Amino acid sequence: MTEHMPQGFRLAGLHCGLKRDERKDIALLVSDAPCTAAGVFTANLVKAAPVLRDQAILAGHGARVRAVLANTGSANACTGEPGLRDARTSAERAAALLGCTPDEVLTLSTGVIGLPLDMVVMEQGIAGLVPALRPDGWADAAAAIMTTDTRPKLASVQQGGYTITGIAKGAGMIAPNMATMLSVVLTDAAITPAALDRALRHAVDRSFNAVTVDGDTSTNDTLALLANGAAGNASLTPDSADFMAFQHALTTVCLSLAQQIVRDGEGATKFAAITVSGAASDADARLAAKAVAHSPLVKTALYGGDANWGRILAAVGYSGAQVDPDRVALHFGSAAFNLTPLQVVAAGQPLPYDEAAATARFTQPEIEVLIELGLGAGQATVWTCDLSHAYVDINGHYRT
Amino acid sequence: MTEHMPQGFRLAGLHCGLKRDERKDIALLVSDAPCTAAGVFTANLVKAAPVLRDQAILAGHGARVRAVLANTGSANACTGEPGLRDARTSAERAAALLGCTPDEVLTLSTGVIGLPLDMVVMEQGIAGLVPALRPDGWADAAAAIMTTDTRPKLASVQQGGYTITGIAKGAGMIAPNMATMLSVVLTDAAITPAALDRALRHAVDRSFNAVTVDGDTSTNDTLALLANGAAGNASLTPDSADFMAFQHALTTVCLSLAQQIVRDGEGATKFAAITVSGAASDADARLAAKAVAHSPLVKTALYGGDANWGRILAAVGYSGAQVDPDRVALHFGSAAFNLTPLQVVAAGQPLPYDEAAATARFTQPEIEVLIELGLGAGQATVWTCDLSHAYVDINGHYRT
Repeated sequence: MTEHMPQGFRLAGLHCGLKRDERKDIALLVSDAPCTAAGVFTANLVKAAPVLRDQAILAGHGARVRAVLANTGSANACTGEPGLRDARTSAERAAALLGCTPDEVLTLSTGVIGLPLDMVVMEQGIAGLVPALRPDGWADAAAAIMTTDTRPKLASVQQGGYTITGIAKGAGMIAPNMATMLSVVLTDAAITPAALDRALRHAVDRSFNAVTVDGDTSTNDTLALLANGAAGNASLTPDSADFMAFQHALTTVCLSLAQQIVRDGEGATKFAAITVSGAASDADARLAAKAVAHSPLVKTALYGGDANWGRILAAVGYSGAQVDPDRVALHFGSAAFNLTPLQVVAAGQPLPYDEAAATARFTQPEIEVLIELGLGAGQATVWTCDLSHAYVDINGHYRT
Repeated sequence: MTEHMPQGFRLAGLHCGLKRDERKDIALLVSDAPCTAAGVFTANLVKAAPVLRDQAILAGHGARVRAVLANTGSANACTGEPGLRDARTSAERAAALLGCTPDEVLTLSTGVIGLPLDMVVMEQGIAGLVPALRPDGWADAAAAIMTTDTRPKLASVQQGGYTITGIAKGAGMIAPNMATMLSVVLTDAAITPAALDRALRHAVDRSFNAVTVDGDTSTNDTLALLANGAAGNASLTPDSADFMAFQHALTTVCLSLAQQIVRDGEGATKFAAITVSGAASDADARLAAKAVAHSPLVKTALYGGDANWGRILAAVGYSGAQVDPDRVALHFGSAAFNLTPLQVVAAGQPLPYDEAAATARFTQPEIEVLIELGLGAGQATVWTCDLSHAYVDINGHYRT
């Protein structure tokens, strides 16, 4: 599949022993040439060592990055100064083998919080990764960053002579022992740092920031975006005619990855799109949609296939968004399963709708909840999954 | 038990048919004399009809109240103008039989959102309640407001010649079909409206507003407080020497009721007190404690008896409170089971603590989580329960 992937990158993923079982646990993504880079990081004040290090590297906007090293098994969070040293040492080892400087190597970690990296195992892993690097190593790299994920996540768009491809992991925002959403997106487009950063912020706001599994924000969330220019296009700036197309393609890749994370959420059996329109502002629409998507009562109703519109109205009511209860309308649909939206609430009160038709929509694996506030032009969609017995299974266990 | 209850009140609770099974579903609490009254109501913008009506009655502060009528089975929420008419009609029927005005009767509802009150059944219920009123009807009234609660909730304090006694229902902030936290607190103390209102706000902030089951705020939450003065004490004002004692006693009653609600939370198997100290302010401490208490990952860890301190630090980190990750300390204890606090984190990093000792604390039915931020003098405690398989069972079912 290399012909559909961005040019000038090599990847590898393997098992080095950071995970106790035999699954892959360390990945390396390398560009042949130095890359323009941008990143977004967790808003949690408790930030893992690699997050602090990567943020410092990318803070200057002009950073040139060659590689991303990612490990599972340990989140390297709440590890203090020794944790920062371990992140730095890992980058140094990779840089020495790759022939670049340590600051050209970003590091990403996910796993148990508070557990120091096993540096002997890490160094063995890094030594094994470098000779394994190859242009078609995407599947290995995507597999090597998985924790409670049940399947690897990859998305790719090709247009205008360049390709944008990303991998991600998710499952829970903080999985049982593991932590985090991690994503690395690579492109061979030529693009300036300012344009790359702007496109990334636009894309993340409409993708990763619009999904929720359990509302918990991890210590390690990181998305790293590298552009090596190997496609040979005229370098994109924020003012380029083609910039919007790049931004749109990047958003498409990020949205696909974010939705894959929700579909593979811990214990998820349903995928739901919560759309709020007619809000006083886009921000209000987002607020209302997030309240619905976060509500344990709505999420258990999704799980049970119970078209419980009262819980949805209640969540909208406490969301903090401007709401006139007498104007709210609500529809349930499942476009993916050819079920058109059925209106169940008008002017804040239930219609004499067909309960069987509502249930038919709420029992599909993909559900649309459409909330119309009747106040303005604000709108937003948030994607979420249900709250199932399996979520409690996965997260109720001892860390053993 | 009437000698330990506030004088001059009569209560009744019975089954009239609003619930399909044979459980009690309607309650009436009546004072022989008009009462000073105060109330607190849901912050949800989607408010049930009885909430809107009661708020209007109590808005003037000088309201004289004689009775509280409470029903289960229907929340009378999202029912529009007909719902308001039904609430009014219910009060009129009770008032006619009690010989007072309709505005002297508050009404509380809990049950299915959007389902109109069955007024034929309601009127039968009201007609049956009035002759059943008696001074020792507390247990019947407490039973008649239960929905998914597994046991009635009652708390009482006697001091200074007067008594304060309350009943409450909870289970889920919004239970499956049912909605709401409802509470009625009666006292025979003589107290001015301003003093009653002030004491109530103080008490609620430290009790009902400091507990959480699932973070969902219902359309119907109501606490009504009635004081009939039958104890014959000199009427309490905010400046009375005895006012603080009244406020403290009221807080004790409300805290007991609020904690009973959490202990009987939907599917709850554990009761946890999350205390944050050393915060920059009390508000920050509350913010951090609530983030921990709301986190599905912390709640499933409580369920599983997993002393997963990383999830707690992560929740503190995203709470919005001012946090210096390098100053955070964390202890786990279970005073109720004679297990003293065990420190597991110092300066943001794990100590080499005994995992078995931590687990011993986290597997008790009552768990203390003590978080010290090291920034200031702010502190707060929030009480919560775990997130269990049974919560998903209860809330994942169809509304049938």
